[in-house]
Amino acid sequence: MTACDFDGWARQQLLDVEAALVAWVPADAPAGLGEAMRYGVLDGGKRLRALLVLAACDAVAGDRAAALRAAVASELIHAYSLVHDDMPCMDDDVLRRGKPTVHVKYGQALAMLAGDAMQALAFEVLTPEGDAVPVALQARLCALLARSAGHAGMAGGQAIDLASIGARLDEAALRDMHRRKTGALLQASVLMGAACGIPDERAWRALSDYGAAVGLAFQVVDDILDVTQESETLGKTAGKDEHQNKPTYVSVLGLEAARSHALELRDQAHAALAASGLADAARLALLADKVVERDS
Amino acid sequence: MTACDFDGWARQQLLDVEAALVAWVPADAPAGLGEAMRYGVLDGGKRLRALLVLAACDAVAGDRAAALRAAVASELIHAYSLVHDDMPCMDDDVLRRGKPTVHVKYGQALAMLAGDAMQALAFEVLTPEGDAVPVALQARLCALLARSAGHAGMAGGQAIDLASIGARLDEAALRDMHRRKTGALLQASVLMGAACGIPDERAWRALSDYGAAVGLAFQVVDDILDVTQESETLGKTAGKDEHQNKPTYVSVLGLEAARSHALELRDQAHAALAASGLADAARLALLADKVVERDS
Repeated sequence: MTACDFDGWARQQLLDVEAALVAWVPADAPAGLGEAMRYGVLDGGKRLRALLVLAACDAVAGDRAAALRAAVASELIHAYSLVHDDMPCMDDDVLRRGKPTVHVKYGQALAMLAGDAMQALAFEVLTPEGDAVPVALQARLCALLARSAGHAGMAGGQAIDLASIGARLDEAALRDMHRRKTGALLQASVLMGAACGIPDERAWRALSDYGAAVGLAFQVVDDILDVTQESETLGKTAGKDEHQNKPTYVSVLGLEAARSHALELRDQAHAALAASGLADAARLALLADKVVERDS
Repeated sequence: MTACDFDGWARQQLLDVEAALVAWVPADAPAGLGEAMRYGVLDGGKRLRALLVLAACDAVAGDRAAALRAAVASELIHAYSLVHDDMPCMDDDVLRRGKPTVHVKYGQALAMLAGDAMQALAFEVLTPEGDAVPVALQARLCALLARSAGHAGMAGGQAIDLASIGARLDEAALRDMHRRKTGALLQASVLMGAACGIPDERAWRALSDYGAAVGLAFQVVDDILDVTQESETLGKTAGKDEHQNKPTYVSVLGLEAARSHALELRDQAHAALAASGLADAARLALLADKVVERDS
């Protein structure tokens, strides 16, 4: 697959995901709640989680309608975590995707409720009435998503993140934190896409390894960009980790070693795909490249 | 069924639910998160939602193991909503179930994360690996719970609640708010229990009506107790609604009319059960009585 083919594919996926979000995130939820939810999730972000779901589904020739729901659900979980993470009691941030954060625009109470409702909506989207998605797949997708979002995944990682402010972590502890905080949902996105098909045990394990490598690579690069880029490029406040005295791959390994580590993780992702036995994993390979080469 | 039989049954259910919560709410989630989650959900509350699930399951001779999971999941959603609702940006309350609220004890950031992780955990509990719960039932339970917790249910009701501070609502608007804020999850609890069996269309509709009536009755009585009871009896701050200038059934209807309305709703719940065609709905009938007759 050429980069050009990939870009065309990705553009189409993003259009589909955005249209689905517009359709499924309610404009008419009461008392401003729908507006705050839509503000928090529409028109922004790289949609990396959605692309991972859809590329993994393609790689296993899976159920596209189910994968689109999983893509939207993973973006809803990601978006809700940003809404809560930006609040004054957490990171206290005012800028996200180049716009005022949800609590700045709608107040803290509605921001918290919007995040809560976005999490619930993710599971609503995964469990449509009728036969749009086979019930066994609905249950599997809910199981994967819930575990990646909860105490063993994202929320657990954020709790470690909170507790690590001003602390010195070694690389193993840092890796554990990042695998939960960011990696778990990225890996689950790959696995949700895979679950939309019927991959054999070898392909499933390979996609799990791929997802773990890409998930960690994403966070290593995030740590690098936090010190090397301006807020304007990132669309969020740069230099935040150092300012908040949070341990990062840059503070623990140094900038050059962090860069090398990101490249190693990309190579691990590629190696996992090579071992998967899947014929059509080119999009996943290119997504791993994009994660490491991105500048915002 | 005598009241004495009911009390023995209820005691056993509460033991089972508490044991399941102890087993499933992780003690070892990282960085204090598990401790905050357990503090927020263990050793407290009437467990009305759990009892509704289990009584409805009994009434349809349903799958007890699945119903226990649904009972725990509904209590997790309820408990997370209290943790978030008590935070300074919402109701700013310091007392819950006679103890300091979660954010008072663990800080706001960990309280928000604990609530978030409790919501995810509810869906983890509903989607166990293996064949403990049939996958079609897992999907159905997730669908019911997500819709009752989200924008169309609890979170939507709380958004209306926020927006109605200082506002005058008529009874229809107040009913809409309460049906979402409290009623949706109580009704879903009944329906989750019912989904654990194979009720016919008539029984399903009757249980849905029963759940709606009990759900609303619960909130009418809550509004009454808020003005007639002391904080010590309630285990939470009394007089809060008036202090916060929130419309309630008492402020809209007056105390006596609110009491009459609660009795009417109990009668509606009983009538729904009578129309259900179910032979063994006595526990549900007694639960409706308890909801209306409670003093805390």
